[in-house]
Amino acid sequence: MLPRKIADSTVRRLAIYLRFLEEFEAQGADTLSSKALAHRAGTTSAQVRKDLSFFGSFGKRGLGYDVHALARELRDILGLNRRYRVIMVGAGRLAGALVQFSGFNERGFDVVAVLEKDPAKIGQRWGGLVVEDVRHLEKVVKQQRVDLAILVTPADPAQGLVDRLVAAGVTAVLNFAPVQLQVPEGVEVKNVNLAVELETLSYAIKHRSDNRAESA
Amino acid sequence: MLPRKIADSTVRRLAIYLRFLEEFEAQGADTLSSKALAHRAGTTSAQVRKDLSFFGSFGKRGLGYDVHALARELRDILGLNRRYRVIMVGAGRLAGALVQFSGFNERGFDVVAVLEKDPAKIGQRWGGLVVEDVRHLEKVVKQQRVDLAILVTPADPAQGLVDRLVAAGVTAVLNFAPVQLQVPEGVEVKNVNLAVELETLSYAIKHRSDNRAESA
Repeated sequence: MLPRKIADSTVRRLAIYLRFLEEFEAQGADTLSSKALAHRAGTTSAQVRKDLSFFGSFGKRGLGYDVHALARELRDILGLNRRYRVIMVGAGRLAGALVQFSGFNERGFDVVAVLEKDPAKIGQRWGGLVVEDVRHLEKVVKQQRVDLAILVTPADPAQGLVDRLVAAGVTAVLNFAPVQLQVPEGVEVKNVNLAVELETLSYAIKHRSDNRAESA
Repeated sequence: MLPRKIADSTVRRLAIYLRFLEEFEAQGADTLSSKALAHRAGTTSAQVRKDLSFFGSFGKRGLGYDVHALARELRDILGLNRRYRVIMVGAGRLAGALVQFSGFNERGFDVVAVLEKDPAKIGQRWGGLVVEDVRHLEKVVKQQRVDLAILVTPADPAQGLVDRLVAAGVTAVLNFAPVQLQVPEGVEVKNVNLAVELETLSYAIKHRSDNRAESA
């Protein structure tokens, strides 16, 4: 039913629209203009209409969008009408913060296992979970019917771990390791690289200083 | 000296190239082909050459890039030949993990203050820092000569806090709050929205299942 190739940037905006639709829903709103949605999402009405047009017709001219129908449809498009079983690979501080992050659970992502190499951490209790030895990765992925992995390790072991995850059947990875992972076709990787984010900011700061110096 | 408008996606790739150049440097390499750099960064040689061409001429046909010269140049372009003073706004678990994240410090970003609303957290020692009352935001920004803020709060207070940061003179914000911040021209915001990242993965998983069902 869905079109085959939707740009990643479109999917991201759909996720952002859904967040705001749910906010409006919680406030008791029934209809919403593309303008209001665009404003909250930091984009234009034209972009909102274009993004939604990929998936059908949601709005009525002059009436705006039906908040409940559109939210339901976006949840369906984004695959959020089911729950996902998530394995956390790495048990450092960032992993600890992520496991506790309520946003994941609220959106249907349940961390079902945590793996680690460091013997000092194996066996620790993390909420209802026990940190397991990463040597058992393949067994855990199968027993826990894992849908998705979050990789929170240093750069060095990351590629080897993702190779093992893929061989064990995992097809979606959220990667925090500062390395570009190589995966076969059909496996989806999203990268969160916090240092890169900061460096786009230092670029902006430097670039602005250059402009100031030029105009001074 | 720099061209005025470089796409954000280009800047991000420059940061990624730099990471790999530094890896190659650490391994003792002196020259590197655009092909090797492209392979590590998950892109094409043509893209690498195009990205670097914005900033001058770095390679020699048949010889590849001078690893040291190119790394130095990229550090300069990205504004990484100085240190940045960072304020953390919010003292939850994610903030705690970020403060300890060695990647920031290694790249020249020093967290110089942590602010929080929750009285139970104010006064806690975080490494060499003491968590301060967010009411003192304006004073802390000035006294600590803050360059950059990392916002790690829930959605609700985020816009009010960024308004105060901007009024106090902060012009670059890394935002983890799940909300699209409105800022005046000249202020740069980068968003890290972990739930949105996961939802692009659930979209991919769902979309793949659809394809399977169709081809079955």
